[in-house]
Amino acid sequence: MRDVAVLGVGQTRFGELWDRSFREIGIEAGFAALTQAKLGSHDLGALYLGNMASGAFLDQEHIAPLILDYAGLAPHHLPGIRVEAGGASGAVALHQAYLAVASGAHDFVMVGGAEKMTDVPEDLQLAITSAAADQEWETVFGATLPALWALIARRHMQEYGTRREDFARMSVLAHEMGSKNPRAHFRNRITLDQVLNAPPVAEPLGMLDCAPSSDGAAALVLGPLEKARRYTDTPIRIAASEVACDTLAVQHRRDPTTLDATVFAARAAFGRAGWDPKEIRLAEIHDAYSISGLLALEDLGFVAKGAGGSALRDRSFGPGDTLTVNSSGGLKAQGQPFGAVGVAQVVELVEQLRGEAKERQVSGVTRALSHNLGGTGATAAIHLLERTN
Amino acid sequence: MRDVAVLGVGQTRFGELWDRSFREIGIEAGFAALTQAKLGSHDLGALYLGNMASGAFLDQEHIAPLILDYAGLAPHHLPGIRVEAGGASGAVALHQAYLAVASGAHDFVMVGGAEKMTDVPEDLQLAITSAAADQEWETVFGATLPALWALIARRHMQEYGTRREDFARMSVLAHEMGSKNPRAHFRNRITLDQVLNAPPVAEPLGMLDCAPSSDGAAALVLGPLEKARRYTDTPIRIAASEVACDTLAVQHRRDPTTLDATVFAARAAFGRAGWDPKEIRLAEIHDAYSISGLLALEDLGFVAKGAGGSALRDRSFGPGDTLTVNSSGGLKAQGQPFGAVGVAQVVELVEQLRGEAKERQVSGVTRALSHNLGGTGATAAIHLLERTN
Repeated sequence: MRDVAVLGVGQTRFGELWDRSFREIGIEAGFAALTQAKLGSHDLGALYLGNMASGAFLDQEHIAPLILDYAGLAPHHLPGIRVEAGGASGAVALHQAYLAVASGAHDFVMVGGAEKMTDVPEDLQLAITSAAADQEWETVFGATLPALWALIARRHMQEYGTRREDFARMSVLAHEMGSKNPRAHFRNRITLDQVLNAPPVAEPLGMLDCAPSSDGAAALVLGPLEKARRYTDTPIRIAASEVACDTLAVQHRRDPTTLDATVFAARAAFGRAGWDPKEIRLAEIHDAYSISGLLALEDLGFVAKGAGGSALRDRSFGPGDTLTVNSSGGLKAQGQPFGAVGVAQVVELVEQLRGEAKERQVSGVTRALSHNLGGTGATAAIHLLERTN
Repeated sequence: MRDVAVLGVGQTRFGELWDRSFREIGIEAGFAALTQAKLGSHDLGALYLGNMASGAFLDQEHIAPLILDYAGLAPHHLPGIRVEAGGASGAVALHQAYLAVASGAHDFVMVGGAEKMTDVPEDLQLAITSAAADQEWETVFGATLPALWALIARRHMQEYGTRREDFARMSVLAHEMGSKNPRAHFRNRITLDQVLNAPPVAEPLGMLDCAPSSDGAAALVLGPLEKARRYTDTPIRIAASEVACDTLAVQHRRDPTTLDATVFAARAAFGRAGWDPKEIRLAEIHDAYSISGLLALEDLGFVAKGAGGSALRDRSFGPGDTLTVNSSGGLKAQGQPFGAVGVAQVVELVEQLRGEAKERQVSGVTRALSHNLGGTGATAAIHLLERTN
C-alpha cells in the first residue's frame, strides 16, 4: 500500500447553526480543504462522507451524492460514499478514504464528516443518537447513551477508586482548550465546582460531563505522499488508520471499564506505525462524556489501567504536559456533530503538526493521535499522524 | 492492486419475514457464505455491511458492530463498517470490501447487505425509501420514488416513442425468471395484461411495474485471487468494481432519460476489465421499476439509446437470448430489501458462473455484470465478474 498524506483541511464553526443547511456546511468545509490542497474539483477521485443519522435528523438518506451535487461535482460523476458508524462515522469514513488512496484506486480523495442535529428538539436528538447503542438490549429498556456511560463511570469508581471529580476535570480541561478555538461550540472556561454542581443527567454524570449535540462539518483532502509535495510544503503522513469493534451492548463486554475496541485499534495502529504511545505528544480523544475521555487515556496506553483518575488529579494534560489532550477543546467544548467529529479531530492535529494552530499551538509536536468512538465504544477508530519535514 | 475473488456466497429467502429479526437474517446469510468459503470467523479481516435505513426502519444505527456482535465475532474485534447509498448500499459496500482486499489491507473480508422493511406500515416504507431522493427539491413537494420514475418513463415515451407495454415486459420477464428461484419474494408468473391492468401507482407505472419492499440479507466472502484456489475450485474473479454518482434530483440531470451515473460507472468498469458489453451473457440489472430496467439496458450499452422499448418488444432477454437479464427474478420478483439488493445480485451471478444455479442455470456464462442503483440513479455501482477456470 502507498503512503497517504493529508494535503488540505477545512472545517466550519461547530454549534447551533440554525441559519445553515446540511448541504451548506458540507460544502463550506469541503471547499476550504480543496482550496488549501491547491486542487480543483476535477482532480478528485472520490468523496467519502461520515454521517450518523441524516435519515432521522433530516429525512434525507443518500447524502454523499447530495453533497457532490450541491458542490457542483455531479458532472464529474465521482463515486460518493457515505459511511456510518455512530459517533465514529467520521474517522471510519477517513479509514475508507485512506484505503482508497493507499490501494492506488484513486490519487486524490475528499473525506467529509457532517451532522446537522439541532434542528430537531433535544429529546429527539437524544433518542436519535442513542440508536448507536443496542436497541434490543439497551435502549428498549430506556437506556440512553449518557445513562450507559454513567454505568461505566460508576463501575470505574467501584473498581479503581476513581472519584467523581477526577473525570470532571476532563470537562474543565476541554473548556480551557476550547476557549482558544474560534470554531468551538463553547468558548467559556468552566471550573471544577461548576462541573460538580451542574444539573444531573445520569448520575454521576451532570450536564457539564456531557458533550453537546452540535451542527458542523469538517473535511480533508488525501493524496499519495509521493505526490504531496507538489501541493503543500507540509504534507502530514497518515502513519496508521485502524478500526476495531466490540459488542454493541455494554453488558456483554468482557470488562465494562475497558473499551477493547480502543485497545485493539490502538495496538494495531501503533504496531503498523512502529510507534510507542510515549512518543505521542498530542492526542484528540473522544470525550463525548468526561468518563469516555478518562477511559481513552487508559485504553490508548497513555496511563496504566485504572490510573486515569489519579492521572487527571496529578497531571494537567495541557500544553505544559508531555501529553496534551484535546487542544481543539474536544467534543465537550469544540462540539459534537456526530459524523463530523472524527474528521475534525484530524483537522486539529494537521493544523498542530503544521504549526498553524495559532493561540492553541502546542510546541514540538511531530507525532499525534486521534481517537473516535461510536456508541459506548462498540466502534473505535484510531489514526496516527506525522509531520514529514 | 491485487486481483480479488468471491470465495463464498449466502442469502436468505427474500419476502415478508415477520418471524425473523434483522440480526437473524444478517447472520444466516453471513454464516452460509463463510461456510461455503471454508473459512472460520478467525480468518476474517473486516465486515462491510450495506444497509439503507436501519435507523428509520428499526431505530437502530451502528449496525455493522451489531451484526459482528450477534455473529459471535465481537471477541475478534474486527472492523465492522456500514455503507449507505440508498438502494445501491449493497453494491457500494461490496466496492469498499473489494478495495480492502485489493489494497492488501485485509485478506478475507465479509460483505453483507441487509434490510428489514416490512415491520413498518407500507406508507412509512414509501416515505423511508423516498429519502434516497432529494428531500429539498423532490420529496418535500410530495414526490416519491415511484412518482419520479413515472416522470422518467413519461419522458422516455415522449422522446423515443417507447410504449407503456414495452417496459411492462420487464415485469413479465422478472416473474418468469423468479418463478424458478426458491429465494424469491414472488414466484408467480404474470402476463402482460396483468401488468397493464394492475392498479395504478404513479401513471404510467402500475402496481406490477414496481418491485416490492422486502426483508432479506445476502453475503459474500472475498479474498485475494492468488489464494482463492485453496478454498474453492471455482473462484469468481471481480474484474471491475466501479461506483459513479449524479445529481440527486431528476430535474437537475443533463437528460432525465439517461442515467449518467450508470453510463460512467459502466464505462469505467468495461475500461478497467478491457471488456465490451457484447461479451456479457448474463446481467443482473436494477429493475426496481420496470422503466429502470429498460433504462439500464440502454445505459449499460446493451442496446442503443432509445432502443430499449423496441428491444423489449423484439427480444426475450431470457435464457434463449444472447443476453439473459435478471435470472434471479430481479428486484421485481426476487424482491427488494434495499441494502441487500446489490449483494444478492452478485450471489446470483456467482452461482450462475459456477454452474450451480440449478433450474435457473443459463448455459455458457463466463462473464457477467451486476448493476445496482440508489434513488433515481444518483448512485450506480457496477461489478464485472468472471469465471477463472
